[in-house]
Amino acid sequence: MLNLSSTLESWRMLFEERLRDLEAALYPDADQSLHPAARYALSGQGKRVRPLLAMAAAKAVGGSPESSLHFAAALEMIHTYSLVHDDLPCMDDDELRRGRATTHVIYDEATAMLAGDALLTDAFQTITLSDHLSPEIRLKAVAKLSRAAGGLGMVKGQALDMHWTGRSDFTRSDLDAIHTQKTGALIAASCYLGGLAGGGNPKDLGCLEEFGTNIGLAFQIIDDALDGEEGTGKSRGKDEDASKLTYLRVMTRAEALHHAKVLTELAMTAIEGFGERGDVLRELGLSLLDLRV
Amino acid sequence: MLNLSSTLESWRMLFEERLRDLEAALYPDADQSLHPAARYALSGQGKRVRPLLAMAAAKAVGGSPESSLHFAAALEMIHTYSLVHDDLPCMDDDELRRGRATTHVIYDEATAMLAGDALLTDAFQTITLSDHLSPEIRLKAVAKLSRAAGGLGMVKGQALDMHWTGRSDFTRSDLDAIHTQKTGALIAASCYLGGLAGGGNPKDLGCLEEFGTNIGLAFQIIDDALDGEEGTGKSRGKDEDASKLTYLRVMTRAEALHHAKVLTELAMTAIEGFGERGDVLRELGLSLLDLRV
Repeated sequence: MLNLSSTLESWRMLFEERLRDLEAALYPDADQSLHPAARYALSGQGKRVRPLLAMAAAKAVGGSPESSLHFAAALEMIHTYSLVHDDLPCMDDDELRRGRATTHVIYDEATAMLAGDALLTDAFQTITLSDHLSPEIRLKAVAKLSRAAGGLGMVKGQALDMHWTGRSDFTRSDLDAIHTQKTGALIAASCYLGGLAGGGNPKDLGCLEEFGTNIGLAFQIIDDALDGEEGTGKSRGKDEDASKLTYLRVMTRAEALHHAKVLTELAMTAIEGFGERGDVLRELGLSLLDLRV
Repeated sequence: MLNLSSTLESWRMLFEERLRDLEAALYPDADQSLHPAARYALSGQGKRVRPLLAMAAAKAVGGSPESSLHFAAALEMIHTYSLVHDDLPCMDDDELRRGRATTHVIYDEATAMLAGDALLTDAFQTITLSDHLSPEIRLKAVAKLSRAAGGLGMVKGQALDMHWTGRSDFTRSDLDAIHTQKTGALIAASCYLGGLAGGGNPKDLGCLEEFGTNIGLAFQIIDDALDGEEGTGKSRGKDEDASKLTYLRVMTRAEALHHAKVLTELAMTAIEGFGERGDVLRELGLSLLDLRV
């Protein structure tokens, strides 16, 4: 029987070790604030959901979780940059993230913005450094990640979120569209990149993307549904207070959790074909339902 | 005899056409502000120095200037994002750039920051789209560009600039170090990427980088030396007024121009071996000395 938590714990340790090595190479300076700010942002108490999804996806296609570690780091760097920029005063103006002071509070706005820029840029550097994978594979990873994170992906989702915030004429399908780009695209890319590193074929990668798209949207819905509850590390009720766009404005918490469950079932169907090799990915996906990962 | 200005004019037209095609693919939306902001930033009256250097470098190694157009667009996107972020209130707080209102003035701070994030991300997407080049070549371009622009390159140079601004204990070698990263790294990458697209061998690429590093530093020194003079499109004397770090604080304008000239001569020596094929690159480099390009 799969012991999910001990598997994930050992993977997390592998990931943190790889991330420390990359930090030492990419952000070695101690005497200026840029590199310490980048390291501070990366060292947040994040759940490392995207790296773990990548490692699980690598395993699902028959590869080793370790094969995806550089890609996993690139994914976490992109996710981290998006949080650092999102927390800035000109965006959400958040002073707390994952229970810690945000990067611009510890350093300053300019340094935080630059640290985000560096993390975004160096995510692509990190992919190129994955020497054990062919140039074709690494280039595909760059293509997928840049598409998922750029002006037609995550950044567009963020802009759409801003556009709709404070308005009341949005529908559930508007929300789905926003979050599919804002959160889902990078989660789907995490699964795709993991499968790519693990040697998956095009059909495998398609299934992994479908899994990730559905899990990503479910994850965001649950994050909204639990926003303000104890233990999430966010300022209590912050999103609602600030008239943020959340699923709780178009459905009840129970409906939101049901919506997430349906999406999770679609995700599970997409990876049925991987059989036992997909167990960790499946369990990880399910565990996201209650954010206990 | 080389007619530099008509050659560059025809190359600029090729570049603008390619850029418009890429904009249409990457930033098609008219109804939200993100894509219009990205297009606005790209459409500035820039001199397109980096794209022209890439095209000239492609020619210098015996390739066609057209072969480098996607890489040239990626370079301009990185340059443009850096200007958009640099102009934000938390950085230089500039309302005018190239004689036009800056992006955050036309849109807003959040949109400008996100447009910069999109341009940075999509620069790497653009490299992957360069289908006529092998995956190996495109991956090398991603590696070089991300290194030149990231936390050990341009962004570090920007952070160092911030660190020293307002202080008086810097030396000429501090300035050289700052600008080699802040400006020189991307200029050197422009020459390298152009040579890569044009089919240059490793020795060619080394010469092109050396050329670009020296030209890049010379370009920055001249930009400082001419800052506040008529016709540069910058607010008059802006850099001096705001206690910015410029070469004019450690040397006279005449000394700065001489320093730039010496660097330019080093650059010329580096590309002597290309013979006539390097004529445009050579002339372009020389013309940067007086910013008439």
